[in-house]
Amino acid sequence: MKFIANKEDLLNGIRIVERATVVKGLQPVLANILIETIGENQVKLSATDFDLSITTLINATVEDEGKFTLPAKKLGEIISRLNGELITFELNGSAVTITCKNSKFDIIGISANEFPQVEENISEDDCMEIEAQPFTKAIRQVVSAAAGYETNNLLSGVVCQVNKNIMEMAATDGNRLARVRAVVKNASTDEENPFEMLISSKVLSELSKISALVDAENIRICKEEKKIVITIDKTKVITRLMHGQFPKYNQLIPQSYPKEAVMDKNDLIQALERVAVMVNEKNSIVKFEFADNTLKLSGDSPEAGNSRDEIDIKYTGEPLAIAFNYKFILEFLKIVEAEEIKVQLNSSLSATVFVPCSEDDYLYLVMPVQLRN
Amino acid sequence: MKFIANKEDLLNGIRIVERATVVKGLQPVLANILIETIGENQVKLSATDFDLSITTLINATVEDEGKFTLPAKKLGEIISRLNGELITFELNGSAVTITCKNSKFDIIGISANEFPQVEENISEDDCMEIEAQPFTKAIRQVVSAAAGYETNNLLSGVVCQVNKNIMEMAATDGNRLARVRAVVKNASTDEENPFEMLISSKVLSELSKISALVDAENIRICKEEKKIVITIDKTKVITRLMHGQFPKYNQLIPQSYPKEAVMDKNDLIQALERVAVMVNEKNSIVKFEFADNTLKLSGDSPEAGNSRDEIDIKYTGEPLAIAFNYKFILEFLKIVEAEEIKVQLNSSLSATVFVPCSEDDYLYLVMPVQLRN
Repeated sequence: MKFIANKEDLLNGIRIVERATVVKGLQPVLANILIETIGENQVKLSATDFDLSITTLINATVEDEGKFTLPAKKLGEIISRLNGELITFELNGSAVTITCKNSKFDIIGISANEFPQVEENISEDDCMEIEAQPFTKAIRQVVSAAAGYETNNLLSGVVCQVNKNIMEMAATDGNRLARVRAVVKNASTDEENPFEMLISSKVLSELSKISALVDAENIRICKEEKKIVITIDKTKVITRLMHGQFPKYNQLIPQSYPKEAVMDKNDLIQALERVAVMVNEKNSIVKFEFADNTLKLSGDSPEAGNSRDEIDIKYTGEPLAIAFNYKFILEFLKIVEAEEIKVQLNSSLSATVFVPCSEDDYLYLVMPVQLRN
Repeated sequence: MKFIANKEDLLNGIRIVERATVVKGLQPVLANILIETIGENQVKLSATDFDLSITTLINATVEDEGKFTLPAKKLGEIISRLNGELITFELNGSAVTITCKNSKFDIIGISANEFPQVEENISEDDCMEIEAQPFTKAIRQVVSAAAGYETNNLLSGVVCQVNKNIMEMAATDGNRLARVRAVVKNASTDEENPFEMLISSKVLSELSKISALVDAENIRICKEEKKIVITIDKTKVITRLMHGQFPKYNQLIPQSYPKEAVMDKNDLIQALERVAVMVNEKNSIVKFEFADNTLKLSGDSPEAGNSRDEIDIKYTGEPLAIAFNYKFILEFLKIVEAEEIKVQLNSSLSATVFVPCSEDDYLYLVMPVQLRN
């Protein structure tokens, strides 16, 4: 194997695929990136942790075909430190010699034969193409509401449905629910065959980070019964589809709210962060009291003391006291781009909905915590 | 106790004294800052870990005199998040109520009676005053060469001598030695009574960070047999003096060098960082080969592979190969402000001296590592 590639292309390719490497696993080869020449002008980089596989193609001048695996971390460190544009890779026995200007490295690797097969081919029967930007924005908006990643927990997944040009994405961990609806161009599905998938929130987070490294307008998604392949430009993300009955989350969203408060997002962030210095670290409860165009916030930590703050809001309903895990609220506030948010309230024990005042159809439902007094 | 102080003054004071708090110690009160009113217009903040004590005075409008201790971390978090200028502190039983605009906190603290006495008074018999800027610069230049902090290891100290207007500061861990000589104004010592001290490198590091938070032209240092008090503006740093025979380091510095190489500092930093990706992590050895206006660097890691690089330098002596722990060299290079550095060489086994080409009288001596082949 011998080829010459551009530093920035290589580095970008490594940054994309290394997200699927396993740093301290039982199989050392999984910490490596498989490098293989494809024809005369391309090199493919692949990595896999079995659950998630990523491949990407970069331009190269191939002199001798071949394949080999190299440790992702060392490779990234070396390439990022080189000070020339063109980098030569040449396989010599159990090491690859990397040369660039006055710098020369022999990196010991592992034979490509030990690398697991990454099966990136998939039937083209059930595919759709979707605009990258609204898709990855929706991922960022819902992903924090999913449960922590566990292989067999459906709630660690994100559900995505595309019906003609309407996309709906949602995630819930049982305590909160995030849902986005957006109009998308290029969604090549029809009403009779809407595209639906339930996919790990961890994989989608990686995908949204990868898409920031790739300049592509559209994302193509194809699925079979167990597998899904997401293609962005020359990068493919391969993972398994989750199966099971995701909660009927739209039924959880109240149809109407007797009370509604509107407030400045940054005022609320700052007051919440102040009050949160004094909360019980076990449950992170902050009490919200709405009354007379004022929102009073308070926290109470049995060991450290207590905190109170208040901000001006628009609220003319009956006084209402309700408590939340403030971390859920802050996560939502930090994703929102709008300056103002609306809080839709029912009672102290009912699901409460937070929405940005001027943004896409995005809502964040949070279950309150019962107050003891 | 009740007083009103300015947010920035308070925050700066907390940032200064919190360096002496003990976060997870056996005595909870050592994680606290002692706050005490001094007359009608000042509040004193103090913290101590017994080895190092720091006190500072801030302006305040005192309404009721008194003293109390509050946890440094919570206090800093709260004050930094407040959004007004004036902050009121009022003691109520076992808590202090902090009020600022719409924000109100009750922070639970510990009685001032449980706080250890910080003895900041010292005899004025053996004092000197020195310009702050060259003194703290010299600390930054030598401190990394000191041994890791251990109470009874003299090599974890920094030695400082001031004789009239000449200051010399040095530190060594046995493998390397840093020495600075500088002309200082205001050094109120005479030839017959030069000022000498051996003081913990950890305390001096803290001092140089504190001096960045204080706007003071001079530093006053007073010592007794066991104690030293360093005063910068309204801040006092109190610690113990180390005693014992510090190595006669000036004897270690060769008087002449048969070989000398001059090179660009950034070229060397970049080449060293590249080569260092492939070194034995146990000893961090990089080989330097000087010959014909070229410096070749190489590293070798038994598991990961090897690396070579070269840079253009000015060197016309006999070829010389020598090896160093590259971390020692990088630490020096990252402190140096000059663009060019000079390497003064003797043989493969002799102490080698690194100096900046245009800077104060600053040298960094490094002992080479024996090469096996």
